Amino acid sequence: MAIVTLTTDFGSADVYAAAMKGVILSMAPGTVLVDITHEIPARDVVAGALTLAQAAPFFPTGSIHVAVVDPGVGGPRADVIVEATGCTFIGPDNGLLTLAARNRKRAFRIESPAFRREPVSPTFHGRDVLAPAAGCLARGLPACEAGPPLAGLTELPIPTSGPLGGEGQGEVIHVDRFGNLITSFEGSRPPAGAWELEMEWSDRRLPVVAGRTYSDVAPGGLVLYPGSSGQIELAVRDGSAAEETGARRGTRFRLRRRG
Amino acid sequence: MAIVTLTTDFGSADVYAAAMKGVILSMAPGTVLVDITHEIPARDVVAGALTLAQAAPFFPTGSIHVAVVDPGVGGPRADVIVEATGCTFIGPDNGLLTLAARNRKRAFRIESPAFRREPVSPTFHGRDVLAPAAGCLARGLPACEAGPPLAGLTELPIPTSGPLGGEGQGEVIHVDRFGNLITSFEGSRPPAGAWELEMEWSDRRLPVVAGRTYSDVAPGGLVLYPGSSGQIELAVRDGSAAEETGARRGTRFRLRRRG
Amino acid sequence: MAIVTLTTDFGSADVYAAAMKGVILSMAPGTVLVDITHEIPARDVVAGALTLAQAAPFFPTGSIHVAVVDPGVGGPRADVIVEATGCTFIGPDNGLLTLAARNRKRAFRIESPAFRREPVSPTFHGRDVLAPAAGCLARGLPACEAGPPLAGLTELPIPTSGPLGGEGQGEVIHVDRFGNLITSFEGSRPPAGAWELEMEWSDRRLPVVAGRTYSDVAPGGLVLYPGSSGQIELAVRDGSAAEETGARRGTRFRLRRRG
Repeated sequence: MAIVTLTTDFGSADVYAAAMKGVILSMAPGTVLVDITHEIPARDVVAGALTLAQAAPFFPTGSIHVAVVDPGVGGPRADVIVEATGCTFIGPDNGLLTLAARNRKRAFRIESPAFRREPVSPTFHGRDVLAPAAGCLARGLPACEAGPPLAGLTELPIPTSGPLGGEGQGEVIHVDRFGNLITSFEGSRPPAGAWELEMEWSDRRLPVVAGRTYSDVAPGGLVLYPGSSGQIELAVRDGSAAEETGARRGTRFRLRRRG
Repeated sequence: MAIVTLTTDFGSADVYAAAMKGVILSMAPGTVLVDITHEIPARDVVAGALTLAQAAPFFPTGSIHVAVVDPGVGGPRADVIVEATGCTFIGPDNGLLTLAARNRKRAFRIESPAFRREPVSPTFHGRDVLAPAAGCLARGLPACEAGPPLAGLTELPIPTSGPLGGEGQGEVIHVDRFGNLITSFEGSRPPAGAWELEMEWSDRRLPVVAGRTYSDVAPGGLVLYPGSSGQIELAVRDGSAAEETGARRGTRFRLRRRG
Repeated sequence: MAIVTLTTDFGSADVYAAAMKGVILSMAPGTVLVDITHEIPARDVVAGALTLAQAAPFFPTGSIHVAVVDPGVGGPRADVIVEATGCTFIGPDNGLLTLAARNRKRAFRIESPAFRREPVSPTFHGRDVLAPAAGCLARGLPACEAGPPLAGLTELPIPTSGPLGGEGQGEVIHVDRFGNLITSFEGSRPPAGAWELEMEWSDRRLPVVAGRTYSDVAPGGLVLYPGSSGQIELAVRDGSAAEETGARRGTRFRLRRRG
């Protein structure tokens, strides 16, 4: 049975995500549907791209990932199927897919009537183009039948700061539900030693301890650790680093070694 | 495998929706469960009726749609199964089902002990009557075994204003996550020309451009277009029409041709 | 097909719950995944324990219930599989599982590499230990292969006040989406007669009518009734008892017979 995941900015109160599911199940009964999230901030293509890139690697080989964050729906941007190593992505060609599909092989426009639901609503390609395309792939149709190949995909500037060295300037790329700050620094090992954190708008320096997990610091303390997604994160034990620092997505900060 | 969808005002923090799913899976293993939404505003039967009517048509033939927005639970209103063309609805007979089940054929009260989970909690028929009834139908039992037929279903006044002519007074029937206003006007074609929008409490007239999709106007502009659900909608490109106009569900407004 | 339920404090905006689902489906294709909720308040182990205990009994025999509310992740607390009568629980040994698994038979630490996903992130055992363990059980591996047995599980003080007699002091253990107050009093029958409710901070006495369901009182009236989870509840018909009384989870109150 094919697995189709959904990543959208539709929220969970409207019928948009459900309509996509109904279309997919109508075309490909037995498909296993999994929500990655429908809570991408409205129209925030970069947040959608980061989320999709973080979640997709954990799904089985052969999974089909449909993503819809699409403020330009009905305009000139193309709808695309992107074949990558081990999985396939479907979405608008506005930069939403390229971070997740870094290892892509081929891309095709979705133009064949067999891959669309006519008449296509100009404001809801999720239901009328992207879900039908997912249904076709779930039934085993090859992506190349969807339409002509597309040479270059739209790329988005995704913030990244490389590994954290002795000191560096970074950016908060995501704030999670716990108030943990996922930063633009990459790393899978604890950055040893004592650090200081300085937010962009302040010359107050907050002491930070490097560790592996929350309980490596006392309750209320700030800890710097390699997060589960391969990025360096900042957390407050039993609290919220976002509240403690005032940081939000996009906030720039500096990390300095202390002492 | 049977498909059962769920539309409720239970939210996603409480166990109510999950308890219904557990009951259905206990009675009919292998059932495919799909959430339409659990975010219908608490006790808002009209909002539930509109949501169910918008989502149900996209699901496969034979789907079973269970809906629970039920402030009168445990009181005199009946629990019912409604057979419609291509699908079946299950819910309280309080008006929640009639818009979705416009093309209904037969309705039955759910009274047979085989279709209920005893003892029935007077405050949770979703778990003890409606979910068991869905489980019975998913296993292939005929609806007519649930109980005696019911001649007339409770109807709710659902706001509708017909097609948009040269000018008209309408109502906002839903505000979606993007702040788009779904109106009581029906239409599948762009209402050509230039328009003015006047909200009920104001004599300020906002210019509106008729189009097909958001990108037909400049960023920040108001666009009037045929929405994906067959209703005329109002949106602000890259913004929120609800914030721009102050409109909420139930707000009345007037559309006039301009110039 | 195995059923795996998920109960977490991850929310629905982050990728954490989806990553767990991807891991489970990768290990055990065909598993039926059901969300109980991901909206447990962040780090609130008692709320998670109450939710899990309320939802689990409605799922089919053989279900596997994974729960993650885990502020001590990566620290000394163990990850465990708990075999109970009719179902299995998987989670951190921090008190989250013991209320649901009151009738438990055996518990095992999850230490075998076959039951984990290496390298284990110190901040995300949900993805790297608990989901893989669920995948192993879903594929039919016995729990005893996960690691050594664990004699005693961590117990949490869960508020309970026994049955409601002629008068009593209780606590609000949950406020649901409708503003209904689920109390620490147990009971499956309406506590007959007329009552008065006194919140801990006030000497105002609110009249309460005992009944079976909301419509047993006039709109706006307070009703005391046996809730669907076996606890006595307080509701306002067509309104919110939480707003009417100011109560939140943990609020203490007194019920007195009136007249």
